[in-house]
Amino acid sequence: MHFFSDNAASVHPRVWAAMQAADAPDFPYDADALSRALDEAFSALFGTPCVGLWVATGTAANCLALSAMVPPHGAVVCHREAHIEMDEGGAPGFFTHGAKLILAQGEGAQLTPESIAAAIDPIRPGVHQVQPHAISITQASEYGRAYRPHEVAAIGSLARTRGLGLHMDGARFANAVAFLDCDPAALTAQAGVDALSFGFVKNGGLGAEAIVLFDEELAETIRFRRKRAGHLQSKGRYLAAQILAMLEHNLWLDNARAANAAAQELAGACAGRLLHAVEANELFVTLDDVEKTALRGMGFDFYDWPAPAGTPGAARLVTAWNSDPAHVAALARAIRNL
Amino acid sequence: MHFFSDNAASVHPRVWAAMQAADAPDFPYDADALSRALDEAFSALFGTPCVGLWVATGTAANCLALSAMVPPHGAVVCHREAHIEMDEGGAPGFFTHGAKLILAQGEGAQLTPESIAAAIDPIRPGVHQVQPHAISITQASEYGRAYRPHEVAAIGSLARTRGLGLHMDGARFANAVAFLDCDPAALTAQAGVDALSFGFVKNGGLGAEAIVLFDEELAETIRFRRKRAGHLQSKGRYLAAQILAMLEHNLWLDNARAANAAAQELAGACAGRLLHAVEANELFVTLDDVEKTALRGMGFDFYDWPAPAGTPGAARLVTAWNSDPAHVAALARAIRNL
Amino acid sequence: MHFFSDNAASVHPRVWAAMQAADAPDFPYDADALSRALDEAFSALFGTPCVGLWVATGTAANCLALSAMVPPHGAVVCHREAHIEMDEGGAPGFFTHGAKLILAQGEGAQLTPESIAAAIDPIRPGVHQVQPHAISITQASEYGRAYRPHEVAAIGSLARTRGLGLHMDGARFANAVAFLDCDPAALTAQAGVDALSFGFVKNGGLGAEAIVLFDEELAETIRFRRKRAGHLQSKGRYLAAQILAMLEHNLWLDNARAANAAAQELAGACAGRLLHAVEANELFVTLDDVEKTALRGMGFDFYDWPAPAGTPGAARLVTAWNSDPAHVAALARAIRNL
Amino acid sequence: MHFFSDNAASVHPRVWAAMQAADAPDFPYDADALSRALDEAFSALFGTPCVGLWVATGTAANCLALSAMVPPHGAVVCHREAHIEMDEGGAPGFFTHGAKLILAQGEGAQLTPESIAAAIDPIRPGVHQVQPHAISITQASEYGRAYRPHEVAAIGSLARTRGLGLHMDGARFANAVAFLDCDPAALTAQAGVDALSFGFVKNGGLGAEAIVLFDEELAETIRFRRKRAGHLQSKGRYLAAQILAMLEHNLWLDNARAANAAAQELAGACAGRLLHAVEANELFVTLDDVEKTALRGMGFDFYDWPAPAGTPGAARLVTAWNSDPAHVAALARAIRNL
Repeated sequence: MHFFSDNAASVHPRVWAAMQAADAPDFPYDADALSRALDEAFSALFGTPCVGLWVATGTAANCLALSAMVPPHGAVVCHREAHIEMDEGGAPGFFTHGAKLILAQGEGAQLTPESIAAAIDPIRPGVHQVQPHAISITQASEYGRAYRPHEVAAIGSLARTRGLGLHMDGARFANAVAFLDCDPAALTAQAGVDALSFGFVKNGGLGAEAIVLFDEELAETIRFRRKRAGHLQSKGRYLAAQILAMLEHNLWLDNARAANAAAQELAGACAGRLLHAVEANELFVTLDDVEKTALRGMGFDFYDWPAPAGTPGAARLVTAWNSDPAHVAALARAIRNL
Repeated sequence: MHFFSDNAASVHPRVWAAMQAADAPDFPYDADALSRALDEAFSALFGTPCVGLWVATGTAANCLALSAMVPPHGAVVCHREAHIEMDEGGAPGFFTHGAKLILAQGEGAQLTPESIAAAIDPIRPGVHQVQPHAISITQASEYGRAYRPHEVAAIGSLARTRGLGLHMDGARFANAVAFLDCDPAALTAQAGVDALSFGFVKNGGLGAEAIVLFDEELAETIRFRRKRAGHLQSKGRYLAAQILAMLEHNLWLDNARAANAAAQELAGACAGRLLHAVEANELFVTLDDVEKTALRGMGFDFYDWPAPAGTPGAARLVTAWNSDPAHVAALARAIRNL
Repeated sequence: MHFFSDNAASVHPRVWAAMQAADAPDFPYDADALSRALDEAFSALFGTPCVGLWVATGTAANCLALSAMVPPHGAVVCHREAHIEMDEGGAPGFFTHGAKLILAQGEGAQLTPESIAAAIDPIRPGVHQVQPHAISITQASEYGRAYRPHEVAAIGSLARTRGLGLHMDGARFANAVAFLDCDPAALTAQAGVDALSFGFVKNGGLGAEAIVLFDEELAETIRFRRKRAGHLQSKGRYLAAQILAMLEHNLWLDNARAANAAAQELAGACAGRLLHAVEANELFVTLDDVEKTALRGMGFDFYDWPAPAGTPGAARLVTAWNSDPAHVAALARAIRNL
Repeated sequence: MHFFSDNAASVHPRVWAAMQAADAPDFPYDADALSRALDEAFSALFGTPCVGLWVATGTAANCLALSAMVPPHGAVVCHREAHIEMDEGGAPGFFTHGAKLILAQGEGAQLTPESIAAAIDPIRPGVHQVQPHAISITQASEYGRAYRPHEVAAIGSLARTRGLGLHMDGARFANAVAFLDCDPAALTAQAGVDALSFGFVKNGGLGAEAIVLFDEELAETIRFRRKRAGHLQSKGRYLAAQILAMLEHNLWLDNARAANAAAQELAGACAGRLLHAVEANELFVTLDDVEKTALRGMGFDFYDWPAPAGTPGAARLVTAWNSDPAHVAALARAIRNL
């Protein structure tokens, strides 16, 4: 019974079907009909003209977007526990040709205008210190917290004031939208986001994420950089098919709702154990070694998490679009009984 | 009737089946059972210990391999019409951090020890000129020519003598092996090749190529660089599944034989028109504008090719593992009747 | 008697004097009075507003300028014997983060609109092939040939038409201006040059070259990149002092005239031996091994040069601002007597 | 009366003399007799074979050294207030092609084995997190503190245990050695340092620092990278001359002792104001705005410094090899009288 991560979950049947429906030959790279349909699909979803480009991974999506927003001699402000800082093997440095990540603080791996200002205000202007050019936030955050529309808008406003671009790492954007039950545009285009990494792989896709560009001028350089990074797959129609299938009939939201619901069921069993409010499909809970051993002995798999000061130990539990309700119920029961 | 390219052909049913058989959850990235089986599968195929790593594209395979073989201040010798020079959007410069491509000559987009020596012998030693560190050859070449085992071995011998690594871009390696009907090891490990980009996408795969490392010491840095380039997909098992399906029962060879046979059938109809001997699944033929218009009028699709001096025009015809025999026969007939 | 190169010649006494006059403390980096005087000095010289930035080497000047004119995924067109291609250890690839050099042909290491067009016209638009973003020409060229104002203007016109930037490597700009006896603006600002690497080191300086930016918008990024490349020296006033001393009373022109005159004296002795017209301070002459040995036996030092087809051998002779007239006369006599 | 910095101080007369004595032509780049004498000079000074290479700036010295010690996908551990992190405009990211700086803590901008371990122990092995490959410490530190030999040795020991290289930024190495009155080898070669950036510019030089490589195998790649970074000056003999003049008769130590003595004189006047012990030529002192205004009104120039919590304000005072004794005495008196 897997609660390791959503990043290796099975592929949704409608995604499989869409891929196989794309099997007839079409033009290579992104010249096929499906790839060419992405701009319109995302523009409809977000209610504003935007560009949608597929890539295989969230790391590629994040870093290609950032590479168009920051020069090699510049910096991106992000949370010190952001995925781009902690889990992408230095990919931002590669794609941006050595730009820097300026690490800011914040509860729940979330930034605020104040924490961003605290990180960049001490930077002296001029060439001796690396200057910020963009902000990157994660929605939902690395601790499964969802920025509210007005919170993103406040960061977007700061970004505009300071002349910075705003990128959103939306590996779990669907979970945040599902939790907030709001218009996705309110979290992005309307809030000043220039580029969104819209994740599908953790949410029922196979190997396709989207870079959605509300600042359409970023698209040109990203197209060149995608090719140059070996990310322009020749059978791109199979990636476009995945994304279109996820958007159709809001499968992306349905899948995220299912994962979120499973997380909420577990959260109900974790009273007093939660390190962070559960606003997506991840739970960070205190568990001591005896408890972990007990749960694992019952067949539940999950990752240890670094224990915050004052706790006897911690773990991360992740649900997915296809978490087995019986497994979820069993885990909830088992935690209640600890 | 498509003769544009093999790079967007449909996916083979056994590849689809293998991907779907991999749908059960397993560990992410390359920790799953299928990804972990690649080393053994390639070691068995080539009869020598080697490492096999999946990536989504041939560009990523080529450039990750080269990035481990050449320092940023070094150079790779390749043919002036090599894919890495002509068609990868500058990816070698990106992955190697600015290493140079030294362009050598050769009939049929093939290098020889002599043409390589002619390119590098004038380079003065020392820091003022960029020094070569590796050679990259394409098998089959960009003009569909297959290096014989002794030809690769001669280049391998030169590489050893000069202290250079040897990389093989095998986007159509299968077609070359099928044409030569030889042991794949004779073209690679036994001939001094350090790293092979083993292509599957053009041969019935969806989005998986292999970097096969006969010099296993290259693997460590490539694993880090693959992650850093955003090419370590979290659902890697679906890529491994494609590759294993292609290797099983030599599907890769069967598919290549089918494509090659179709090309030979066309070649039989192109007497006097062939710009290069047909040794894989590509034909480069003289066709004037009237002839092209006639063929296209009959429903045959293909790309124009720059006309060599003294010819009235040229085109490229490419067959694939699933070229429709009726279409091939029809095209052969149509060309004969021109 | 050295005719090796001008690149290690002694420093002119007025340059020494200016450096020592700058010994009093001032602000570091480029905030001192001398560094701040460069914009005005160059604007006066060229008769148009421009920015002047010092760096220590011609390689740094060339590559910083180019790095502001071409994105990492782009290319610079240059002559296949250009210094940036042949003699800078791959520095363009480093500073531009892997942009490509597209090599064009041309007599005397000079480009023409036609040779540039021949190099870039075959490039397909789109992301698969690297697109040109700038042209770099060398004045005087690597073979000591001087572009006439109308020749630069023709290239500048092409650059504008194609949307390309135009860079001039002026390591021996002074020699070209001295030879042509023309307004330096006619070779640069008025001819469409965006950035000039204005060389002083070969012409009596110690370690200071100028990047002169007629497109002043390039300055901002170059200032950041200069710092980031470790080229923003803290005692920059000593570099600015060198440049100002060279500009004052046209020392740069006087020095170049002296070097050119020495070269012309040698040219007069090389009838029938000259591989290129002598328009600066370099001579490329046919000399066979016996002749070279004879000259070296008399105490003349010079570099061999690759012998063009049909010649028995070749050598390069370089004069400098301080070539000893007696040595020059002796060499001229010796060559006449061969 | 300047107490801004030592980085723009005048050049020592013996350095001027040595440069002018080098005026006779010699081979270019580093093939001249003076440049070729550096290895021997540093080997004698440090009592062990080592390689000495000149560059113009400390940033170039630091970053070239680090670029040979860490791959692009790796990281360097340094103090969060290290010069390479705070004041080099992102140069480490440029020279290393995007390697990361891992920021560690420590009093007085100094690292300890414990603070280094605290920074790197949480890093999970494998490709997802950037792995450390080297440590960089600054001697004297950014707060003018000097590592004792046993402190460097303890870090060197940790480096060996963890398989990390050890780099020392010695922009003020002379001041540290002068303060400690110890064998320079005890702080470097004998303590496990692989590469030292040996600073001369702040200590009476004009524009020459040395990269001293105790791990001689680093030299080869640094030579190529120095050229590629535009840092191989053609008149390198003038840089070598500066360094040799500084080493001769221990001018480097005499100059540092003078600067240190001036700093100690000021320190004597700053009882109760010192934020850090004075162990080199920098003082970090508490001064409120009224006091600063008073001092500046008397003609003393210095930089503000960010005020630590609980202080009314702070400033940095820097002495140099040629600080005027009268100015120093006057400033000491003025501070006492505040």
